[in-house]
Amino acid sequence: MNTADLGLPVAVPSTALFTDQYELTMLQAALRSGTADRRSVFEVFTRRLPEGRRYGVVAGTGRVLDAVENFRFDETILGFLRERGILDEPTLQWLADFRFRGDIRGYPEGEVYFPGSPIMRVEGTFAEAVLLETVILSILNHDSAVAAAASRMSVAAGERPLMEMGARRTHELAAVAASRAAYVGGFHTTSDLAAGFRYNIPTVGTSAHAFTLLHDTERDAFTAQVDTLGSGTTLLVDTFDVTEAVRAAVEVAGPGLGAVRIDSGDLLLIAHRVRQQLDELGAEKTKIVVTSDLDEYAIASLAAAPVDAYGVGTQLVTGSGHPTCSMVYKLVARADSNEPGAPLRSVAKKSMGAKTSTGGRKWAARRLDEDGVAAAEVVGTGPVPAELADQQLQIPLVSAGVVVAREPLDAARDRHIAARAGLPLSATQLSRGEAVLPTEYV
Amino acid sequence: MNTADLGLPVAVPSTALFTDQYELTMLQAALRSGTADRRSVFEVFTRRLPEGRRYGVVAGTGRVLDAVENFRFDETILGFLRERGILDEPTLQWLADFRFRGDIRGYPEGEVYFPGSPIMRVEGTFAEAVLLETVILSILNHDSAVAAAASRMSVAAGERPLMEMGARRTHELAAVAASRAAYVGGFHTTSDLAAGFRYNIPTVGTSAHAFTLLHDTERDAFTAQVDTLGSGTTLLVDTFDVTEAVRAAVEVAGPGLGAVRIDSGDLLLIAHRVRQQLDELGAEKTKIVVTSDLDEYAIASLAAAPVDAYGVGTQLVTGSGHPTCSMVYKLVARADSNEPGAPLRSVAKKSMGAKTSTGGRKWAARRLDEDGVAAAEVVGTGPVPAELADQQLQIPLVSAGVVVAREPLDAARDRHIAARAGLPLSATQLSRGEAVLPTEYV
Repeated sequence: MNTADLGLPVAVPSTALFTDQYELTMLQAALRSGTADRRSVFEVFTRRLPEGRRYGVVAGTGRVLDAVENFRFDETILGFLRERGILDEPTLQWLADFRFRGDIRGYPEGEVYFPGSPIMRVEGTFAEAVLLETVILSILNHDSAVAAAASRMSVAAGERPLMEMGARRTHELAAVAASRAAYVGGFHTTSDLAAGFRYNIPTVGTSAHAFTLLHDTERDAFTAQVDTLGSGTTLLVDTFDVTEAVRAAVEVAGPGLGAVRIDSGDLLLIAHRVRQQLDELGAEKTKIVVTSDLDEYAIASLAAAPVDAYGVGTQLVTGSGHPTCSMVYKLVARADSNEPGAPLRSVAKKSMGAKTSTGGRKWAARRLDEDGVAAAEVVGTGPVPAELADQQLQIPLVSAGVVVAREPLDAARDRHIAARAGLPLSATQLSRGEAVLPTEYV
Repeated sequence: MNTADLGLPVAVPSTALFTDQYELTMLQAALRSGTADRRSVFEVFTRRLPEGRRYGVVAGTGRVLDAVENFRFDETILGFLRERGILDEPTLQWLADFRFRGDIRGYPEGEVYFPGSPIMRVEGTFAEAVLLETVILSILNHDSAVAAAASRMSVAAGERPLMEMGARRTHELAAVAASRAAYVGGFHTTSDLAAGFRYNIPTVGTSAHAFTLLHDTERDAFTAQVDTLGSGTTLLVDTFDVTEAVRAAVEVAGPGLGAVRIDSGDLLLIAHRVRQQLDELGAEKTKIVVTSDLDEYAIASLAAAPVDAYGVGTQLVTGSGHPTCSMVYKLVARADSNEPGAPLRSVAKKSMGAKTSTGGRKWAARRLDEDGVAAAEVVGTGPVPAELADQQLQIPLVSAGVVVAREPLDAARDRHIAARAGLPLSATQLSRGEAVLPTEYV
């Protein structure tokens, strides 16, 4: 096992405890009732997009593959379950040998999705497929929420680079996954060293107000920074007076100063003033980096400002108002009986009023209009119509327990940018709206 | 090192990479400029509570202590930093020997806080204290956000038990920390096995709709579950028709059935109907558990309903609308010069308009009125007034690099419940309001 495969810069013996207790007690009950081996199909989908959002972004798929591969019950874990009296001995014995041997298909990472899109389909015995519910949803719900926010920010930023700087605003390991998801959604760099270590995302840094305050003068701080990091560094200019700081920055670093960072105040106004001042000082190539509680709207509002790069923290790692997706993992089909080879039958919750779902093992395809622009998300349970055969969205991810779809993170990022570009133009409006594609069931 | 000390059921060699790159480049610049050893005081505080909230809850302190203890740069980490060209050799050499040798004081875990409360104070050389910024903020911002939501839910639930069931809605390791924070905030149990393993929080589980759908009839599913888990189990009754399900549940399990769970629909209405039906069936002691996108308002709205326990997921782990706090880590004082033993001077960012802070090393105390109810959060930089000496809020957490304040999680939970009870009555109103205590600076 590659111990770094879980998005952690650490050794991870197992992901098996990232699991709700009921998955294991359902397993025990199914083992006893004889239904545990019924072939079952679970699907991950969402009933709705976050309010006002026009598309979702699949992220975390690669992390799901790692989690599935490392979902094993070692002696420590079995000992815990035994000691707590959560499971009986036959179930513990069954878990000791467990590894997932089924199949997973799904939307590749970076792809966009809509309400009802069958983002992931897990097929195997009930026993092996039910166990994966919690960890799969944890990863997809978190990572896709961050990627969706990142995608909107990347639309707002246009060609300007986006730096992910949110580690301090979220759980320290969620931060690493958030950096990864932000990269998939279109970000360029991260401040999070663990994300650089694990995912090879380019890392960046400037400096903090504390560094200026540590020194006797702002000029001393700038000198210290330039002396060791070179004039290409980014100096933070809003600890005291911005105009004085910019003057000192260019005097210390020379007109080759890399960038200045503005982290507070009216960014639009200050960016214009600082640009003018830099130009007057001959530092025409010195860039302006802004940070300060930015979200996609603040980024868009700075489109006409002389800003060269954005650093985004809080709103990115918290999904810009939507910190989780509402993806669920539902049994949609299962073997008709306990007989080996029994045919599948569709199943679905059907109670009054709420949370019903559509049974049946589903494929999905994106229908294009005559200009090649996406026109509908088509989801079906029967054979795939010939005209949609080339637009199918699901790919094999795991076959008979073996991961078959590993890819570099850049592939997911490129796929996302292409998928987004294939949507109708209104997809990238920041204003609140409906899903930009209708979902059609056939 | 106890490898489980980081909230992970895994071996964690180091927390040192949960760090923004600029902490390390500031270190390098300070080492070069000779300011790295200046004695420095950093404080964690928040400028405001989330909109409408009346108090905050300190959570994650215990995790911070673990993180500080394990903040070491091993060969793998140093190799990464070297290979990326992020740091020069003298800085890498310095890091190789690093461990935090300073002092940390702070509000004990579970305590409440207000705008300006100096929740944590880190004192040491600039070099050692600046490095901890990112990981300390990650932990406190995440865990305190969840604990604050949990506290409000626990007020709303009164004496009824609260189950944390949000693992699937957040990053798989954030989920473990969220279970812990929820427990501090007043929750009773968790569905997350990793949280049970790591923090010894009692774990619980029911069953999912998939389990019912796996079987040929709902009655088969109930029989399977009761056969292996006993009649004290909780049966999920809203897969098809609730009334039929309740009838079948009592027939299968007998009147000693532990509980039924309702996960969809109009919970108030359905709970009343189900209670009446259970009573008519002689199952007067069978409990009713509700789950379904609950938040503190939904819980409060069910106060008059015959509900015995609540399971809460999404809104808990996402902080009920506020997934992060806005805690910051600011340099407030530092040695006046590079001379050993130089006196401290207060420092603070002072730029126009935004994000200024108050310099000086601060103490905090909660002033009580004549009835012993909290009246003000008093924050000061000079000597502590005699009448407040017994109400001081900060305690020693780390002394000369040694953790001195480990405690069982129940201690933090008990402290929170006591601290909340000591606030004015309006603290526990769920409606939007202002901080229930004013912060006074002396």
